[in-house]
Amino acid sequence: MPARNVICSGMIDRIGLDSSNITYKTNTDSLEEKRPIPNHKVGLERIAELLMDNNIGVIKSTQEIDVVGHRVVHGGASFSNPVHIDSVVKEKIKQLFQLAPLHNPANLEGIYVAEEIFKGAKQMAVFDTAFHQTIPVIAHKYAIPNKFITDNNIRVYGFHGTSHKYVSERAAEYLNKSDKIITIHLGNGCSMTAIKNGVSIDHSLGFAPSNGLIMGTRSGDIDQSIVFYMVNTLGYSLDAVNNLLLKESGMLGLTGFSDLRDIESQAEQGNKECQLALDMNAYRIKKFIGSYTAVMNGLDAIIFTAGIGENSSYIRRLVCTDMNYYGLELDDAKNEVRSKEIREINTPNSKTKIMVIPTNEEIEIANQVYDLLMN
Amino acid sequence: MPARNVICSGMIDRIGLDSSNITYKTNTDSLEEKRPIPNHKVGLERIAELLMDNNIGVIKSTQEIDVVGHRVVHGGASFSNPVHIDSVVKEKIKQLFQLAPLHNPANLEGIYVAEEIFKGAKQMAVFDTAFHQTIPVIAHKYAIPNKFITDNNIRVYGFHGTSHKYVSERAAEYLNKSDKIITIHLGNGCSMTAIKNGVSIDHSLGFAPSNGLIMGTRSGDIDQSIVFYMVNTLGYSLDAVNNLLLKESGMLGLTGFSDLRDIESQAEQGNKECQLALDMNAYRIKKFIGSYTAVMNGLDAIIFTAGIGENSSYIRRLVCTDMNYYGLELDDAKNEVRSKEIREINTPNSKTKIMVIPTNEEIEIANQVYDLLMN
Repeated sequence: MPARNVICSGMIDRIGLDSSNITYKTNTDSLEEKRPIPNHKVGLERIAELLMDNNIGVIKSTQEIDVVGHRVVHGGASFSNPVHIDSVVKEKIKQLFQLAPLHNPANLEGIYVAEEIFKGAKQMAVFDTAFHQTIPVIAHKYAIPNKFITDNNIRVYGFHGTSHKYVSERAAEYLNKSDKIITIHLGNGCSMTAIKNGVSIDHSLGFAPSNGLIMGTRSGDIDQSIVFYMVNTLGYSLDAVNNLLLKESGMLGLTGFSDLRDIESQAEQGNKECQLALDMNAYRIKKFIGSYTAVMNGLDAIIFTAGIGENSSYIRRLVCTDMNYYGLELDDAKNEVRSKEIREINTPNSKTKIMVIPTNEEIEIANQVYDLLMN
Repeated sequence: MPARNVICSGMIDRIGLDSSNITYKTNTDSLEEKRPIPNHKVGLERIAELLMDNNIGVIKSTQEIDVVGHRVVHGGASFSNPVHIDSVVKEKIKQLFQLAPLHNPANLEGIYVAEEIFKGAKQMAVFDTAFHQTIPVIAHKYAIPNKFITDNNIRVYGFHGTSHKYVSERAAEYLNKSDKIITIHLGNGCSMTAIKNGVSIDHSLGFAPSNGLIMGTRSGDIDQSIVFYMVNTLGYSLDAVNNLLLKESGMLGLTGFSDLRDIESQAEQGNKECQLALDMNAYRIKKFIGSYTAVMNGLDAIIFTAGIGENSSYIRRLVCTDMNYYGLELDDAKNEVRSKEIREINTPNSKTKIMVIPTNEEIEIANQVYDLLMN
């Protein structure tokens, strides 16, 4: 930094499933391995081993690392900018466990492990909620008594902000225009943002990263009366319902599978539950495209990003089918091309651009923590 | 019947507030009175008195009534058509109290009072959920484990069906076209329906009449994680949260007022909370217009109906402002005209029709129970 030269990159996915995938890549070497990674701590330990490996490592000593930049999902009302992590920050991340039970605990664990391994490095946090602090009150307030926003900070926070920010900036550079963009982040968590003149003005996740689109194991939007019914009539405990909506719902609840690649291959083989789940998923994305076009009174481009958004041509096709009212005309051949590049996948005549932009939260986090380090 | 001649009509509103309004009208007389009507039972008793009043009544004896048609809000999975009310039906309406706590208890009470007063009459029920039985699985299923739909019938039911059906049929007659219509029912309860080729295909209320648009005292859509947070972190009981979301939220929670006429007059006088609440209300309606246009891939007309939809030119104006992407061009003068007639309020050039259609659930219920009586 600040040249943004990537010396080494990598990723672990399917953490907690039977077999996890680890990829690790330097400018000269690359490695792929499958091994069970039961939790985030084991994953980060494996990453540290690889970084200092005698053959394919890129550092000899942890002293070479100046800053570790952590992505932290929920910053609540406390954080709208990157921060140095101290005991107060850690305590606040902990206080927000309740709001991001799938994420903040793992994020804090990552901080503890990184503090142990990279003893000389500064630890900094970049919050997924920060980019959405621009959402105006008309869109971030809930229709519940006012005291809950004034006294308890219950409002829409929005998530995946680092990703939505990164891809919307790349889109604006590419298009030379950023008036009215909808970014669609589809990974294990899924969300959409309405971005007007470069600024987040509405978002599909709310107070916690649980509602909006259908996710891997999270329900997304449901009628809240279902929570009361499950407890009062079906006899579930409230904790069981919370757990069920976060960990047993979404694509997993609808199909028995949580990985979209499995669900697509099942659907291809005629599994009707899997087909319906894919259709429901795309249906909900379409509805948000409509909503956000309404509040922006227009639409210049939609951007697909993150694991599913970048790789599932099938989901992209479902979303763009029968959407010519919104000027979306998918080029089927371009849609099928697999690439790591920023690309348009609409026809030349499409009134609205359809783009795939690989997200890069790591570069975005590196930029933000570098700026913090220098200032 | 079957000539649909209205012999007498009337209405009570503001039930439970300090002062209720009663209107009563025959072909020769009319009466308006203000008196406290604390609950639905007292209201129905007053109606019965007026019907048999020596001076302005229209019947001498309750024997003259053949059928009493009851609007029942939640029919659950049991009722998709009008039915004769017997002890089994009453038991099922009671079983659904949990799902429509603001309505089904009052509806059942109305049945009991009507059985007492109109002893010789047949009692029949028309369900608000019936019109929405056509909503396809892609739109009526939630992304929760499949057993909840198969074993527990947890799905989108949809409400205000009698009203959405009635006004969409009037719109189709008027327009000679009914391909893609959005009906917007704004009363104390509020909901929107996407109607394609005359059939309900999506709807803003779900399992119970609590979500979707911002209502008089109901929150409409909220992130379900707020329920867990209020209980686990803020220490509310689950019943208190349920009560709060149904009876203390919505426009009341945002402003301290539940009647839109009061809120509009406060906003005019500069009350910023009231102005924001009106803006939030319209913002959410716009989002649903976008959603439903997306799933229909087009829009021929939007229809405003029910107390607020028919009478609040201000809410209609907020909804139609900055919506030219959707072809909505409001004629401000036409919008301000107060009338009981079906009317267009768009400019001649507006690509999408904007209509006000007074709902008439009573005539629709009368038609449906007459058909049941004859068959």
